[in-house]
Formats: sequence, C-alpha cells, structure tokens
Amino acid sequence: MSTSGLPFDDFRELIANLPGPVTQALVDARQRDSQLTKPPGALGRLEEIAFWLAAWSGRKPAVTRPLVAIFAGNHGVTRQRITPYPPEVTKQMVANFSNGGAAINQICAAYDLGLKVFDLALDYPTGDITEEAALSERDCAATMAFGMEAIAGGTDLLCIGEMGIGNTTIAAAINYALYGGTAQEWVGPGTGSEGEVLQRKIEAVEKAVELHRDHLSDPLELLRRLGGREIAAMAGAILAARMERIPVIIDGYVATAAAAVLKAANPAALDHCLIGHVSGEPGHMRAIDKLGKTPLLALGMRLGEGTGAALAAGIVKAAAACHTGMATFESAGVSNKD
Amino acid sequence: MSTSGLPFDDFRELIANLPGPVTQALVDARQRDSQLTKPPGALGRLEEIAFWLAAWSGRKPAVTRPLVAIFAGNHGVTRQRITPYPPEVTKQMVANFSNGGAAINQICAAYDLGLKVFDLALDYPTGDITEEAALSERDCAATMAFGMEAIAGGTDLLCIGEMGIGNTTIAAAINYALYGGTAQEWVGPGTGSEGEVLQRKIEAVEKAVELHRDHLSDPLELLRRLGGREIAAMAGAILAARMERIPVIIDGYVATAAAAVLKAANPAALDHCLIGHVSGEPGHMRAIDKLGKTPLLALGMRLGEGTGAALAAGIVKAAAACHTGMATFESAGVSNKD
Repeated sequence: MSTSGLPFDDFRELIANLPGPVTQALVDARQRDSQLTKPPGALGRLEEIAFWLAAWSGRKPAVTRPLVAIFAGNHGVTRQRITPYPPEVTKQMVANFSNGGAAINQICAAYDLGLKVFDLALDYPTGDITEEAALSERDCAATMAFGMEAIAGGTDLLCIGEMGIGNTTIAAAINYALYGGTAQEWVGPGTGSEGEVLQRKIEAVEKAVELHRDHLSDPLELLRRLGGREIAAMAGAILAARMERIPVIIDGYVATAAAAVLKAANPAALDHCLIGHVSGEPGHMRAIDKLGKTPLLALGMRLGEGTGAALAAGIVKAAAACHTGMATFESAGVSNKD
Repeated sequence: MSTSGLPFDDFRELIANLPGPVTQALVDARQRDSQLTKPPGALGRLEEIAFWLAAWSGRKPAVTRPLVAIFAGNHGVTRQRITPYPPEVTKQMVANFSNGGAAINQICAAYDLGLKVFDLALDYPTGDITEEAALSERDCAATMAFGMEAIAGGTDLLCIGEMGIGNTTIAAAINYALYGGTAQEWVGPGTGSEGEVLQRKIEAVEKAVELHRDHLSDPLELLRRLGGREIAAMAGAILAARMERIPVIIDGYVATAAAAVLKAANPAALDHCLIGHVSGEPGHMRAIDKLGKTPLLALGMRLGEGTGAALAAGIVKAAAACHTGMATFESAGVSNKD
C-alpha cells in the first residue's frame, strides 16, 4: 500500500470503499468458542472481543504484536488561553514518553505493548480555529498519510492515543460541529480548565464553529478546518489499519473525535474499532453513544496518551489468550451439560 | 501467625479486631501522586487503587507477587437438580486448572499472576442445605483455617476465586438470608440453569433459608448452615490477608457472598478488598451495592474461577506501575500549570 502523497479526493474514495469483516474467520471463532471448557457465553465481553478480532483480522484471534501509537500536535487555539498548561508541555511530554517517564510507558511495560510516538511539527502549531482553518487541504492530507505510516512496522492490534495541549478544545469543536447541541455540552476541563479558562474554552468552540459553519457538511473539510495534526494523523492511522486488517482500540475524548470524522463520512468506518475507555471528560460518553459503541473500561481517567486504549489492550490480550489457549470439553475430559 | 486448629469462637474474636489501614503509607502515596507528570486526578481510579494498595499493604504501592487462589468445593444441594452440569465437573475442572486448560490459566499467563488451586474434600459434598446444615461447626472452622493457608507462600495481591457445581445456589441462599427480598431476586442462571431447573433453584433457596431461619442472625452460624467449603475457605483467606496486610481482589457472585458473611460480622472487614468485576449473574450488582463497593470491571462474564478478579489484577498491576514508575514534573522537566 502506498500512502505517500495521497491528495484529499483519494481519501474520500478510500473512506467510501472500506473492506468489510471476514465472515469465515468469525464463523470459525464462534465454532471454537462453543467447544471451550466454560458454559456458553460465560466469558461475556471477552468472547465478543475474540469474535471481533477474528472478523477484522481475518485470522484466528491473536495479539502478538500490540502497538500503542501516540500522535502529538500543537494548536493555534491555545492563544485563546483555553488551558492552564503552556503549549511547551506537548514537546516536554513527548520527551517524557521517549525517556519512559509517562503513565503510558508504565502501562505498555506492564502489558508488553509496543509504543511509538509521532510528533507532528510541534514547532508549527495549526491555525487558530477561532480565526482561520487549522490546516490547508494539502497539510491535512499529508498528515493523514503520515498517520497511515503508524502501522508500517507491523502490528496486530493498534491502540490510538494522542498528546497535545489544547486538543480537548479541538475535539469539542469537532463534536459540536458534528452533533450540535450546545458548545457547553461538549467542552470539559481537559487537563484542568476551570472558571474563566473553561469559559474561554466554551467561547472558543462557539466562535470556531460559527466561523466555519458554511463549510462543515463535508467531514474531511470539517477535519481540516476544526481539527489538528494529531487528529488528522489518527484518522489516517484508523483508515490504514482497516485496509491492512488490523483491529483498532481508540483511546479517549480526543481520539474519539478523530474517529467520529470517519464515521461521519462512512457509517461503517469504525466497525473494526473498539472504544477502550470512557473518559472522565464529561462529553465522552455522549460522543461514544453517537458512534454506537460501548466502551470496554470506565475508570474515570482523563489523561490521553493512549492510556485508556492500552489498559483495554490488556483485556483484549486476555480475551485472545482465552480463546486460543483454553481446552475443549473433549480435550480436557470435562462433562458438558446433562 | 498460627492458623491451625482455631475453633469458631476464635474466629469471632479475630473478625471483631481486624487491623486498620496504615495512614502514613497512604499520605506518602498521595504526596508522590501529586508530583507525577499528569494533571491531578487524571489517572482516575488508577490513583485510588495506588492509594488503596498503600493503605492496606502499609508500603509503597507494589504488585510483585500477585496470586490467584481458587477454592473448589462440592455441594449436597445439587441433589435438588438445580444445575444442568453434573457435580463431577468440579473435579474435572480442577484437573483442567492443573493442566493449564481453563480460562483462568490463560489470564494468569497473560498477566504473570501466580495460581494456586485448593480442592476441598471434593468426594465429600457438604450437607444439602434444604435438609440440614452444610457443615458442622468443627468442619467450617477447620475449612476457614485451611483457607487462611492460601497466603502461606507469600503474595502481595490476593485474588479470590472459586469453582463448585451448585455454588451459585449457595451464594443466593447466603444473600437471601443476609439481605432479604425474595429468593428469586438472588437466584440467577449460574452455569446455565433455566426453565424448570431455575425454578427448582429458587425453591431450594427458599426452602433452605426457611429451614435454618431461626439460626441466621449470627454470620458464622449462617456460613456454616448455608455455605460450603469453598465459601468458608474464601472467608478464611480474606481474613488472613487482612492480618498479613495483603490487599485482596474478590471475584464474582460466589466469592462476593463469602465476603458478605465477614461484612455482616464486622462492617470494616472488607475495607482491604476490591470487587474485581460485576458478573453477568443478575444479583451480583445488588450484592456489591450491599457491600458499598464499586466493581472495577463490567465485562458481562459469569464464569467464576477467579477470572474477573484476575482481569482486575491486570488493572491493579498497571496502577501500581504508574505510581511507581512515572517521572515527576521536576525529574522530567515538564512545566506544571501556569
């Protein structure tokens, strides 16, 4: 698959023509599950996860090379003073990831997950969405294509996470543009906005959506105007994974907004994706509902970095291990139902 | 700690005089958490878990020797034909655990958890609770003492699970006796009871509680009359862990009923315990509410074997790893809030 230099229109065509699930692998997995030494359905969501892995990988459920990909970007909208942390923190946290000091590093070590960090022109923040488009069409398409490269080294389970001071404002603007309601419903504290800072965040989201409102009916145009580099790259990574039959776990509020853009363009675009964790960010559950998904975990986290997806990957690994490693009633000599 | 030959009265005294949390370790953990490279509170429940580990271990949060202990017992009440599986399955599944073929083996391997299986006189089922007491006082006390030995090899996180054909009937009887309501509210499908089998299960629970009703105000007497060997052993293991400052994760509907007996005897008896997973068994969430707990996971499983507790142990390991391994704002050179 060549992913270099795809212009915007090629992405439209790609999104409109995504491959579906592999029915035979799903049938095989259901057949095996029915023989495992447990009452039918007794592993609950773990069984569904095994079927989902089979359907979207097209093979026996297996997680041997899980990967957490973190995309980091900076945002012109921070000029509106919508967060208590300075934008330099994005780059500092990328260094923290490289040095193994962040939460995501510890979780990846605990579950033996690979970790790759993609920093996206951190010295060149995107346009301030309250005043202009975040990205040009060319920059947006190039960043999506770059995001597609996340899987170039090979993986069989992709966890999508992000880092970017200001990007819960961006995610709120995307959700408000996609789903309506009020800006307030989609804006939360993020890294800790409160009081006047939170009020400015709400106003920035309102102003941005008002400014671009005549151009938001096309999802990719919405992405370019209201998004950011890590948002575009995550959308690209989710698409690339679909093309290469790699199941995806989506992290928190910001990653979900990136995914939502694809769902707006093709209702089936996220069928290969799980939502790993419903964030403490107030609008996340509503955003997940809009995608028709049920999050795997609810631990009140609101950190990003792929942490929710990585914790969920631990569950997905266990689900694959049960499906693959369990004995059958016959092989174990266990009596089935009377 | 000597655990051999404790008669019933010594257990009463033990339960009435349990050690509390270690405040200094909790204060230290909160202090460290406030310096880690994340917004305050952004790891949600993971932070609470780290604090809980500190308070009940009395040390820095750490999980280096996690152990899943499965207690297996057989039950005279299966004579009432309250389950579709024959009682021989208990022993067959114990063999399956030993051979590495069960779901719990795969989860333990995935998360590097130790596993010990304690089979409790499987050839000698307890008394049929619809006709007599499950256990004599001497047998019950001896089984609790045996359960206390679960931690003899050392562990710093104990996951409590069980296997026993018929034991969701036992758990339902305990909950019905402790909390009232109707038998139907506490009886669920277990391994797959439905139709007439389920109806007999409800009737067995009603009959048992009616038979013993004049002797149920004392929790240990309730345990002996309505319980079972794996129930008594789990209660013992939870107590021993408390004495030795080992945090505990309780598994599903049956393990929760064993814990509930201790809570009835001392409201603080489960303060060192997490509920790992709310089961698909209909009465489990209600039983967890009665304990004032919030389960860590909700994955619709209803298998027992410690599977829900073991999955939760994966989360607890990650929580400890984050607390221990993350960099501080100072050490990582990350700017804190403006």
